[in-house]
Amino acid sequence: MTAGGPASPGGAAAPREGAGPRAIDTVFIANRGEIALRVVRTCREMGIRSVVGYSSADADSAAVRAADDTVRIGPAAGRRSYNYPPAIIEAALRAGAQAVHPGYGFLSEDPDFAEICAANGLVFVGPDPGVMAQLGDKALARALMAAAGVPVLPGSDGPVQGERSVAEEAGRIGLPLIIKAAAGGGGRGMTVVRHHDDLVPAYRQARAAAREFFGDDRVYLERFWERPRHVEVQVLADAHGGAVALGERDCSVQRRHQKLIEESPGPGLPPGVAGRLAEYALRGVRSVGYTGAGTFEFLVSGEDVAFIEVNCRIQVEHPVTEMVTGMDLVREQLRVAAGDPLSVRGDQVAPRGVAVECRVNAEDPDRGFIPCAGRLTEFTPPGGPFVRVDTHAYAGWSIPPDYDSLLAKVIVWAPDREQALDRMDRALAEFAIGGPGVHTTIPLLRSVLRDPLFRAAGHSTAFLDERRSYA
Amino acid sequence: MTAGGPASPGGAAAPREGAGPRAIDTVFIANRGEIALRVVRTCREMGIRSVVGYSSADADSAAVRAADDTVRIGPAAGRRSYNYPPAIIEAALRAGAQAVHPGYGFLSEDPDFAEICAANGLVFVGPDPGVMAQLGDKALARALMAAAGVPVLPGSDGPVQGERSVAEEAGRIGLPLIIKAAAGGGGRGMTVVRHHDDLVPAYRQARAAAREFFGDDRVYLERFWERPRHVEVQVLADAHGGAVALGERDCSVQRRHQKLIEESPGPGLPPGVAGRLAEYALRGVRSVGYTGAGTFEFLVSGEDVAFIEVNCRIQVEHPVTEMVTGMDLVREQLRVAAGDPLSVRGDQVAPRGVAVECRVNAEDPDRGFIPCAGRLTEFTPPGGPFVRVDTHAYAGWSIPPDYDSLLAKVIVWAPDREQALDRMDRALAEFAIGGPGVHTTIPLLRSVLRDPLFRAAGHSTAFLDERRSYA
Repeated sequence: MTAGGPASPGGAAAPREGAGPRAIDTVFIANRGEIALRVVRTCREMGIRSVVGYSSADADSAAVRAADDTVRIGPAAGRRSYNYPPAIIEAALRAGAQAVHPGYGFLSEDPDFAEICAANGLVFVGPDPGVMAQLGDKALARALMAAAGVPVLPGSDGPVQGERSVAEEAGRIGLPLIIKAAAGGGGRGMTVVRHHDDLVPAYRQARAAAREFFGDDRVYLERFWERPRHVEVQVLADAHGGAVALGERDCSVQRRHQKLIEESPGPGLPPGVAGRLAEYALRGVRSVGYTGAGTFEFLVSGEDVAFIEVNCRIQVEHPVTEMVTGMDLVREQLRVAAGDPLSVRGDQVAPRGVAVECRVNAEDPDRGFIPCAGRLTEFTPPGGPFVRVDTHAYAGWSIPPDYDSLLAKVIVWAPDREQALDRMDRALAEFAIGGPGVHTTIPLLRSVLRDPLFRAAGHSTAFLDERRSYA
Repeated sequence: MTAGGPASPGGAAAPREGAGPRAIDTVFIANRGEIALRVVRTCREMGIRSVVGYSSADADSAAVRAADDTVRIGPAAGRRSYNYPPAIIEAALRAGAQAVHPGYGFLSEDPDFAEICAANGLVFVGPDPGVMAQLGDKALARALMAAAGVPVLPGSDGPVQGERSVAEEAGRIGLPLIIKAAAGGGGRGMTVVRHHDDLVPAYRQARAAAREFFGDDRVYLERFWERPRHVEVQVLADAHGGAVALGERDCSVQRRHQKLIEESPGPGLPPGVAGRLAEYALRGVRSVGYTGAGTFEFLVSGEDVAFIEVNCRIQVEHPVTEMVTGMDLVREQLRVAAGDPLSVRGDQVAPRGVAVECRVNAEDPDRGFIPCAGRLTEFTPPGGPFVRVDTHAYAGWSIPPDYDSLLAKVIVWAPDREQALDRMDRALAEFAIGGPGVHTTIPLLRSVLRDPLFRAAGHSTAFLDERRSYA
């Protein structure tokens, strides 16, 4: 029984926003987990009907329960449901949607999928497919940004083919260097080379991995910084020339290239660095005609900064930016998709305080962090002042074995970093999660929160992998 | 099982705050429900040990589960547990506490209890007992504020005794007027007189009611405004001369003098009114030497404002102020209790956006809003961006029949009022509460959120009682 009564389609009022040039009254959500529920919530607040597409493994997820309507799009296997464009398009059309929100799933950065949406008369909530294709090619993106005056790491001009070219390029760039897949992203298939003898074997291995992961064996080389910070800038841009940078997020706490803790602003950055990053990101936005929400990722080492890539989607860590700016980024995405201008200009963005996000994954720290599936007999998220929990899980729900291990995101805000970290530690301590065989990353996260190097903001992306106790 | 691990006393770090002149490492919490859990959370973030005193009816409340330690203080009946000073003092001393936080319970405004704390070497988290005694006498508080230059309603100079005096005073003040208990508060025992013939019978009835409720039959007279707004100012003051006004809260949506919806800033106030209220509140603070957290309550009618009373405690609606200012008011209370200065000066307070709180009470709208007790088979609070839920309830818990009906407070924030109200409606729609015989005020709250008069901020304190459909 829902004491709140049925959540009627359309919510409190007729659409006021999203009624721009391209009127959107129904959004089809083509992703799962917490982000699907996240999008449902904003749609409801905007008076937009939400329809969630779900696989049979997600039939009783919180997003499915919360949506105004739902369509089963296929079986558990992502390649036949969430990552299968024909199923998504058919379901979206059947649901009467005018737009498709891809969350941060596989299809969110797939320009072909964006094209297919357009061909079927559906607005893809994201940038133009042509822009996505350019930025999705990591070597090309790097070249475009360099041409726009954004600093990049010394590296090869585009993909490198052949062992002799690799050796020549490596001689020019210097060691250590990193070999990356041109079609890559998310830290997959990257190889660091520290000694000259390792170069050719590493090149062969990187090509094979790129082919396996991305179906595209082109790789490129970049100078490798040993202990940089990962700092990214959230941007929003509309089709009317409006573009804003919403401050930076430090995502240096990573385990095997997977982000675990994100915060804004970047702690302990030298003066001027954050401002330069924002300026570079906006320069990048303008140079390619980017629209929608996006993230420009940089490495930072002391005063030195270097662009690495653009993520053409809403990101897992976007709530950190919402907490410091007071903005709803999904709302802005939907405004831009409808052809409306952003709700703010750059001079109206005034970040306040410090926000931190911890990713609570269902993984077993004692077994190499392998993902856990199983029934949640207990699931009570923390609450209280300035604590937000984005999750699709609930007591009684069973974590399916088919997808990634993200169980919940805990986000906190406070006037300063020390209070924010204390608040996060309190919130994580309060988070009661239980079930047969269910383990989480909460103990790991709490260890990091108490680590003196992290508290002093002296950590880098290498921090977690170098701490044996956390590995 | 708690995946977050045990919440060790002391939390993340040794106490840094609360280590002022009066070092506080353990706080005894002498109240129940959501506010007890609220105080536990801030204590943990500050590295202060929290001990919750509980009655046997609250043995498995969320506050008891969350506290570092607990002490049973008596049976369900409040007069033998929460409102019984000897039990509180004994438990606090036994727990090794240096301070007692009275929440917003009966004892929080009892100067005798504050004296007893002091006599037992315990810091009472609240203002000086002498100040509490002055402000607790509503007729005296009115006279003090008038002397300090704060506008008050025309009224009697202190309590009025005898039917002839009442008639004379009424002639001077004019009709309509209201008869109030000098020892009163919370809307109890107040009588409105609109016709001269009703004056003497109403006086007799008001005295009898005052005697029954407060054990003190002194009453005073005040001019009655028919459709005012209830607007209050949150203040904080320390013992070092620091005093800040944290903006106003409009609490005009009331049913039978009980607040249901509170918001900040006050919507649609004429220009300058909010600033004047803040100035009057600070004048009041300085005139009596107020310390700690407190609320100065005013009536507002167009441009006219009039002081009504001071609440010498943290209030149910304090999160509204926290959401717009970014401050943790309980933290400030504990700082002041420890002898530390406030964490901010007045010029550092910068309220942002709009916050709204709805009180979700376990009451049956179809049976005259009588409180409901019973087991909660379902209890899933809403989440998402800028939604906060303060509650002591959880699925499986049974609402005891012994106390007030407050089940949860839903607080939302947004950049403007329209978005905030849409967000609240979404959050209330999402709040899943169920159980045999359990009803809530959610349908009533959602009706108000959609009411055109409320949306347009054209409502007054009479709004809800005048809407037959809500009565």
